[in-house]
Amino acid sequence: MPAREMRWWGWGEDGQGGPAPAHAVAWLEAQLGGPLGPETPPVALEDVRLPRTRLRRRAAEALRAIVGEDGVREDRAARVVHAAGKGYPDLVRLRAGEARPAPDAVVLPASAGQVSALLGACALAGVAVVPFGGGTSVVGGVEPLRGPHHAVIALDLARLTRMRRLDERSRLASFEPGLRGPEVEHLLRARGLTLGHFPQSFVYSTVGGWVATRSAGQASTGYGRIDEHVAGLTLTAPAGEVALAPHPASAAGPDLRELLVGSEGALGVLTEMTLEVQPRPAAGSYEGWMLPSFEAGTEALREMAQSGATADVVRLSDERETGMSLALSGLTGARAALTGSYLRARHVAGGALAIVGWEGDADAVLRRRRATRAVLARHGGAALGPSAGRAWARGRFHAPYLRDELLGRGVLVETLETAGTWSGLERLYRAVRAALEAHAPFVACHVSHVYPSGASLYFTFLAPMERERPLAQWTAIKRAACEAIVDAGGTITHHHGIGRDHAAYLAAEDGEQGVAALRALKAQLDPAGIMNPGKLVTSSGRPSR
Amino acid sequence: MPAREMRWWGWGEDGQGGPAPAHAVAWLEAQLGGPLGPETPPVALEDVRLPRTRLRRRAAEALRAIVGEDGVREDRAARVVHAAGKGYPDLVRLRAGEARPAPDAVVLPASAGQVSALLGACALAGVAVVPFGGGTSVVGGVEPLRGPHHAVIALDLARLTRMRRLDERSRLASFEPGLRGPEVEHLLRARGLTLGHFPQSFVYSTVGGWVATRSAGQASTGYGRIDEHVAGLTLTAPAGEVALAPHPASAAGPDLRELLVGSEGALGVLTEMTLEVQPRPAAGSYEGWMLPSFEAGTEALREMAQSGATADVVRLSDERETGMSLALSGLTGARAALTGSYLRARHVAGGALAIVGWEGDADAVLRRRRATRAVLARHGGAALGPSAGRAWARGRFHAPYLRDELLGRGVLVETLETAGTWSGLERLYRAVRAALEAHAPFVACHVSHVYPSGASLYFTFLAPMERERPLAQWTAIKRAACEAIVDAGGTITHHHGIGRDHAAYLAAEDGEQGVAALRALKAQLDPAGIMNPGKLVTSSGRPSR
Repeated sequence: MPAREMRWWGWGEDGQGGPAPAHAVAWLEAQLGGPLGPETPPVALEDVRLPRTRLRRRAAEALRAIVGEDGVREDRAARVVHAAGKGYPDLVRLRAGEARPAPDAVVLPASAGQVSALLGACALAGVAVVPFGGGTSVVGGVEPLRGPHHAVIALDLARLTRMRRLDERSRLASFEPGLRGPEVEHLLRARGLTLGHFPQSFVYSTVGGWVATRSAGQASTGYGRIDEHVAGLTLTAPAGEVALAPHPASAAGPDLRELLVGSEGALGVLTEMTLEVQPRPAAGSYEGWMLPSFEAGTEALREMAQSGATADVVRLSDERETGMSLALSGLTGARAALTGSYLRARHVAGGALAIVGWEGDADAVLRRRRATRAVLARHGGAALGPSAGRAWARGRFHAPYLRDELLGRGVLVETLETAGTWSGLERLYRAVRAALEAHAPFVACHVSHVYPSGASLYFTFLAPMERERPLAQWTAIKRAACEAIVDAGGTITHHHGIGRDHAAYLAAEDGEQGVAALRALKAQLDPAGIMNPGKLVTSSGRPSR
Repeated sequence: MPAREMRWWGWGEDGQGGPAPAHAVAWLEAQLGGPLGPETPPVALEDVRLPRTRLRRRAAEALRAIVGEDGVREDRAARVVHAAGKGYPDLVRLRAGEARPAPDAVVLPASAGQVSALLGACALAGVAVVPFGGGTSVVGGVEPLRGPHHAVIALDLARLTRMRRLDERSRLASFEPGLRGPEVEHLLRARGLTLGHFPQSFVYSTVGGWVATRSAGQASTGYGRIDEHVAGLTLTAPAGEVALAPHPASAAGPDLRELLVGSEGALGVLTEMTLEVQPRPAAGSYEGWMLPSFEAGTEALREMAQSGATADVVRLSDERETGMSLALSGLTGARAALTGSYLRARHVAGGALAIVGWEGDADAVLRRRRATRAVLARHGGAALGPSAGRAWARGRFHAPYLRDELLGRGVLVETLETAGTWSGLERLYRAVRAALEAHAPFVACHVSHVYPSGASLYFTFLAPMERERPLAQWTAIKRAACEAIVDAGGTITHHHGIGRDHAAYLAAEDGEQGVAALRALKAQLDPAGIMNPGKLVTSSGRPSR
């Protein structure tokens, strides 16, 4: 399974996604109040503005001495590919031919020992280090900021792709950080196992990136977030190594695992992680339901989560996202009419679409499906059958391709997410939606993860791109949404992470003393401050962009 | 529900427990190879050696200005009660009339604001602070060490006993730290809810102590350990407050909750905790099973934990603990003969006793019981019926009383615990047992918590007390066991915590860099180092006793 490199200017690989069908374009134009622009291709790679490398020759030689000649790349292609993640501001910048900031070099260690030696050499030479896994961050997590240092390298973990141990008796698998989603599942499938972690970025993101960003997958309501899978962990930090054994549970003081999970490369490099795995499900079943309203749907989800009747995949769209899904599905003519009368007869027309899915042994799937369905029916839901579920499963990793296409046609497309307690969820939903609607004509939302105490909210919004000032436009919307989230008591991020974009809001999450504690920790593990400057904790408490 | 104060020299209150019946004494004497000594009562309170208070008058006045005249106690009774926890070395010391070290005063704040003011005054005056909840630590967690400071106070949280909020929609309850187990359940029962946390210390230990020590309860296999219940948390530290909102989940960097859970008073005082609660179970069922051997039993437990067929209470005794349980049960004559032939006919005589219990709605209990029983039967188990389960449930909080009685009759009784992965569990069990058997004629073990990746091991051991040097005897055994645990890859503690007794082994758990990170954190939150000196992280990395 050869590693797959993404397009430098957007998501994924050529030949996937787009172009959007005519009915989808028509619907989008109706929402945006005007025609989409013509497709504007990104500039050619050779025309991208790329600053000359600042890495001093002696430093480059020190790095080559550790990883070999071919382990240090300073060529244009490598530097541009590692110049940004896949967030909206990243792609706007790259498509316009602006690679600044770019890493001065890309360095590829092949072992934890090489990582350790590289960090030592970089601390000595005053070179910042940005750990780089799949490069799929949408919050600026891999932006190559150099902070106060003379140069910055991207530390690409693509050569650290081994499964180091598989303890089948204890259901624990130990991975190096550079394995991508399909590679992890391929290795486990051979032994009848699965990790069960399927974020939208699954095809390109890495196991190290999942742990470093406290990732949630699409089936995390059932399988658990990545943090719930982490049993053991090794952090290679400039000051040394922190190696935590995979004890099943412990009362030995503060849990350092939970400090390293979510550390976003700002404390060091996660060089090995031992994760709980489980048998591959024998059966699976996905289906769609229509609820009378988003409010009725969230009540159903709350009952599911609190009564143990929840599905493994739970996704509830609000009315606007439901409208979008139906419009983009391309349902027309007789089938659309049939669907419409079915929904009207069941008093759920104009309602909220839910996708629910169960995995496991066949008996358990049947029993659990019965329990979930009973709750959905009790809240006025109408079953849509398995085809809606299959359609969702088919397209689950594809949304980013559509974003790329729209971006090329002058549309601002962005997503952001939060989570809140059940008692505060409606207020949080209304506050964030209102903040976004002040800037964007189309705002939609779904719940994708439910817990006994609350749920996540995932917003998607579209607006005509202000072509003269796309980044200022984005910054204004993003700020409005973040402030609404904080004011309404939500978490600043439920699954994308802090990175560069949310660093200013970490104090709202952890308090000034909490941030000070994280800074003290960083000063201990990374005394020269070379690890991923400007991300997670910043010296000023403000993001550095 | 008035607060109940424990006896200063032992567990619980007068009129509970003992004396042990004759058959139990006979069995114990057979194990120990000689007669128990006569009951030696503890010295009288007025004869306890208590050093003069070292708290300077000006400091005492500053504290009284914050909490009022009756909030600062310097009397003998208060100081002796707060001079130790309830570990074996604590009780040996107290019974012998030695209260050194004792706190110079006992201070009772009535609000988080008063806690904050007290910490400020203590930092200024150079007074160490030992947070004191139920005082039930068995690892020296409340030993009033003053470190480099001129005096030390016990900060008794007995006046902080309010439920601050109950969010029934989100199933979250916010408590002050000083509430004891029965008080927590009493408050929740009024709303049909439960926390489901029942450590052996339940009657006397506090919710703050549970969170501060990362406690596991007897039903934690089903309900989850206390750390799994913590949604929000407020730490009042000398440097300021860390207040973490009860987000249902978040990707906002490292999880500071998990740093404060298990912080054992060494970073500050947990002044409020928001915990996930759930409906009180409608039905419950406990029963006993006999497995052919401890090894067969652990295999059954592994299958239960990994197939989702686990009970809420799971407890499996090894052959020696099973023998003890049968001997102490007082089964004699015809009933004993009947039981013996039943066990022989099923090839489980001399085997391993399991107690399993399920709670929840009646249907779920039935279904889950069926699943658990099928696993137990598959591994050669024979059902003993509900009476064995009821006997366990009846006595579940009583073992400490027996310990007190034995201690008074010259018997060293101690327990310690660890956890390991399934693949390493047998090796861990054998290693710790061998280390203990080198010092103690009777060593028994049970598994009380199971996880998909492993299980806990809880050892009980008895030896004739070396009356001339009881602490040296204990120290030698404890060290041997701890080293065996570390060498065999177990965690140094699964539910008792680090405290004073395990502080030397924290580096084996977290590594030198991990401990350095915790020290950096402590330096940030407690710059004067007044919080619980000598516990959790010590400046030398060695315990200070």
